[in-house]
Amino acid sequence: MTSSNEIQLKPDERVDELNRKGYRIIQDTKQFCFGMDAVLLSAFVKVKPKQRVLDLGTGTGVIPILLEAKTPGEHFTGLEIQPDSADMARRSVALNGLTDKIDIVTGDIKDASKIFGASSFDIITTNPPYMIGQHGLTNPEEAKAIARHEILCNLTDIMRESARILKPGGHFFMVHRPFRLTEIICCMHEHRIEPKRMRLVYPYADREPNMVLIEGCRGGRSRMTVEKPLIVYKEPNVYTDEIYEIYDL
Amino acid sequence: MTSSNEIQLKPDERVDELNRKGYRIIQDTKQFCFGMDAVLLSAFVKVKPKQRVLDLGTGTGVIPILLEAKTPGEHFTGLEIQPDSADMARRSVALNGLTDKIDIVTGDIKDASKIFGASSFDIITTNPPYMIGQHGLTNPEEAKAIARHEILCNLTDIMRESARILKPGGHFFMVHRPFRLTEIICCMHEHRIEPKRMRLVYPYADREPNMVLIEGCRGGRSRMTVEKPLIVYKEPNVYTDEIYEIYDL
Repeated sequence: MTSSNEIQLKPDERVDELNRKGYRIIQDTKQFCFGMDAVLLSAFVKVKPKQRVLDLGTGTGVIPILLEAKTPGEHFTGLEIQPDSADMARRSVALNGLTDKIDIVTGDIKDASKIFGASSFDIITTNPPYMIGQHGLTNPEEAKAIARHEILCNLTDIMRESARILKPGGHFFMVHRPFRLTEIICCMHEHRIEPKRMRLVYPYADREPNMVLIEGCRGGRSRMTVEKPLIVYKEPNVYTDEIYEIYDL
Repeated sequence: MTSSNEIQLKPDERVDELNRKGYRIIQDTKQFCFGMDAVLLSAFVKVKPKQRVLDLGTGTGVIPILLEAKTPGEHFTGLEIQPDSADMARRSVALNGLTDKIDIVTGDIKDASKIFGASSFDIITTNPPYMIGQHGLTNPEEAKAIARHEILCNLTDIMRESARILKPGGHFFMVHRPFRLTEIICCMHEHRIEPKRMRLVYPYADREPNMVLIEGCRGGRSRMTVEKPLIVYKEPNVYTDEIYEIYDL
């Protein structure tokens, strides 16, 4: 073990800045590190004062930490099945002095409603595995594969558990890949988490989108607002103003 | 009756240029006139040689006439429930010398599979009424109201009949409003016309989209390609290059 300020780091771990309230996050350079997906999701999510937020498959805890920084929510919980990731997340919460505001629970998304109980959260967020089973090259390193492929849970598991855990009228926020949009929308609708707001993320103004941000409301009626496009790059290596704003750069 | 070249016009009718092969179209200035929706749909549709195309709710016949001009399809049929519109469409077909290539049939979308038979078309196109029942202000003039509101048929009617009429592997193309995207995608999926390709039409690059173009395949598997945004205006009164190209201006 080596130490970086007050926190213990394991081999291959490093501490990254989050550019929000001076918060930092521990990541393992050999494992799944958070990407733009998590940052854009945290900017898309709306949390009001007194609301309680659950992040399904929280990994290193980046989403609860960013949401604590950006929103007035009362309390944030991250659920993570991989003990090593959950341990890193807990140490990042401690590193930022957030143990009163953020809990990291080690557990399976498929059991989430048993763990937390019915109608227990106002808001659910998730940046789930994007790939269907063996679709694409499954990463031979198990921890990365679990983060990227639907090995331990799939969309149906996420929507079924979310429908149980959300309070009536509670909101669900997810980032995913556009190629799965039909499954996403149909699965949300089937579980009565009605899609209400969607934003497509286009790398350039003249390219296909590579991410979709979607919000659903438990028990909402069918009416979708599709927002203006979110364009990432103005030109190679130059973000658009909106991306600089989201990253607070 | 007044005459414009070789064609008989009724009161309130006028002849408009289509900017394709010199084709023209008769419209009633007091009734529903085609808009950008129909033009963008006809640019989104893909028709191959020898394919037979059916346009559900063809109105004045603008979509079959544009598709005859733009694609190598073998034959085009327009189905229209309103006799006055169907009559205008038939006179436009004659005006352009297309009676061998385009049929206009007077009839109800709800009976379309009885009229045409199962697995009878390769391609279905439709620019249907966008508004749910009485949603928004129902136009007091009946013909316009039928074109804009789901008075005589709804999405379920369209998808049920299309699933019957399309050959297996046949393609379905529709223009609609983004606020109904959940219903559209779920209804297509339920009827096994799997959404395969979608493009959102944004009036400006920084505005919400006001149209969605969607393609489904009868019996296809679930995987969606969302295309690059279609932006209409570069600045007020100035179309983007793509729109000028689509209109052939």
